[in-house]
Amino acid sequence: MPRETRSGTVLRTAAALFATKGFAAASVSQLARRAGLSKPGIYYHIRDKEELLFTICVNAMTGLLEVVRAGVAASDDPAVQLRGLMKAHTTYHWRHPDTLATLFGQMGCLSPERRRPVVALEREYLDLVRGIIREGQRRGVFRRVEPTVAAFSLFAMLNTIDGWYDPRGRIGRDDLVGELERVYLGGLVEPTRKRRPRAAAPS
Amino acid sequence: MPRETRSGTVLRTAAALFATKGFAAASVSQLARRAGLSKPGIYYHIRDKEELLFTICVNAMTGLLEVVRAGVAASDDPAVQLRGLMKAHTTYHWRHPDTLATLFGQMGCLSPERRRPVVALEREYLDLVRGIIREGQRRGVFRRVEPTVAAFSLFAMLNTIDGWYDPRGRIGRDDLVGELERVYLGGLVEPTRKRRPRAAAPS
Repeated sequence: MPRETRSGTVLRTAAALFATKGFAAASVSQLARRAGLSKPGIYYHIRDKEELLFTICVNAMTGLLEVVRAGVAASDDPAVQLRGLMKAHTTYHWRHPDTLATLFGQMGCLSPERRRPVVALEREYLDLVRGIIREGQRRGVFRRVEPTVAAFSLFAMLNTIDGWYDPRGRIGRDDLVGELERVYLGGLVEPTRKRRPRAAAPS
Repeated sequence: MPRETRSGTVLRTAAALFATKGFAAASVSQLARRAGLSKPGIYYHIRDKEELLFTICVNAMTGLLEVVRAGVAASDDPAVQLRGLMKAHTTYHWRHPDTLATLFGQMGCLSPERRRPVVALEREYLDLVRGIIREGQRRGVFRRVEPTVAAFSLFAMLNTIDGWYDPRGRIGRDDLVGELERVYLGGLVEPTRKRRPRAAAPS
């Protein structure tokens, strides 16, 4: 693994600080202390605290998009693509918990100008998921659910794991991802109960 | 509708303040101004700011549990029970947006002693949902997904609506609830694709 750069240390330490204390309550002095730098040493790397938050959010969304796109690219089958995406998203999440916690919990602290590019990246992710869902529906393999509602339901499931899941508990990480796939792709109700009586097909 | 009591006004105003500014950043002076009271007037009703947050969280969870239990009680069919619960939960959410935003976003600011009763109420809700899921599985109408993962997936879908959904947009509230039901209960994949080839049944 390449050695971490000084600015990499600043970003990683800032993400951990913002994730635990919140952006508003975190100070540059605290960050300097935790990163083992002086305050001027921090300001050598960034203009202000908001620039740090902005960089963390952009990096988080860029990195997330990159891995989920790779997860999707491995197949042409929409269901397999969504499985690849869920696996890539959760893996990224567990590798960068502070970065994603800062993105999802603190990006509201960005000024409108700095929030815009982050929202644009989120929109790319939304469009990626809706595109897969629409393609699955076009092929008749996905049900006719509203793609936007279905996409945000997926994001909700993936992005709230930290709030309740403990990887040291009885459900391992791979099992968790498998269960989330089952719930999201398969739904709760037994398939045989879902088939509605149909009128005789014209032949 | 009965006239709001003074302490009701304080709680409602505090929930709106905490939901928008966050508990840490909100001051009792701001609350007094917004509620049209003096600071001593606020302290007549509460001991400290944390007691307010505690009361809001307990009331929110108690109220939510009451309506979802009523939504469940209307049927003995687990799928219908979950539909009733989702309808009741979202309706409560839209009637008390600040209260639930404060509960879900700020309860981490409570001291461990004051968080405990709120967590116990959340646990009651979790057990209610898991109970319905297990009963559905026992009857063979629900698939064998992990009940805890399935329950938190449902909470994730229901509790993140505010982050993306705009009721003034093209999807009405009733349609949204219907779509969430379809995604959660039915899953994304077409039922006919879910049936696995089975060995010939003994006859």
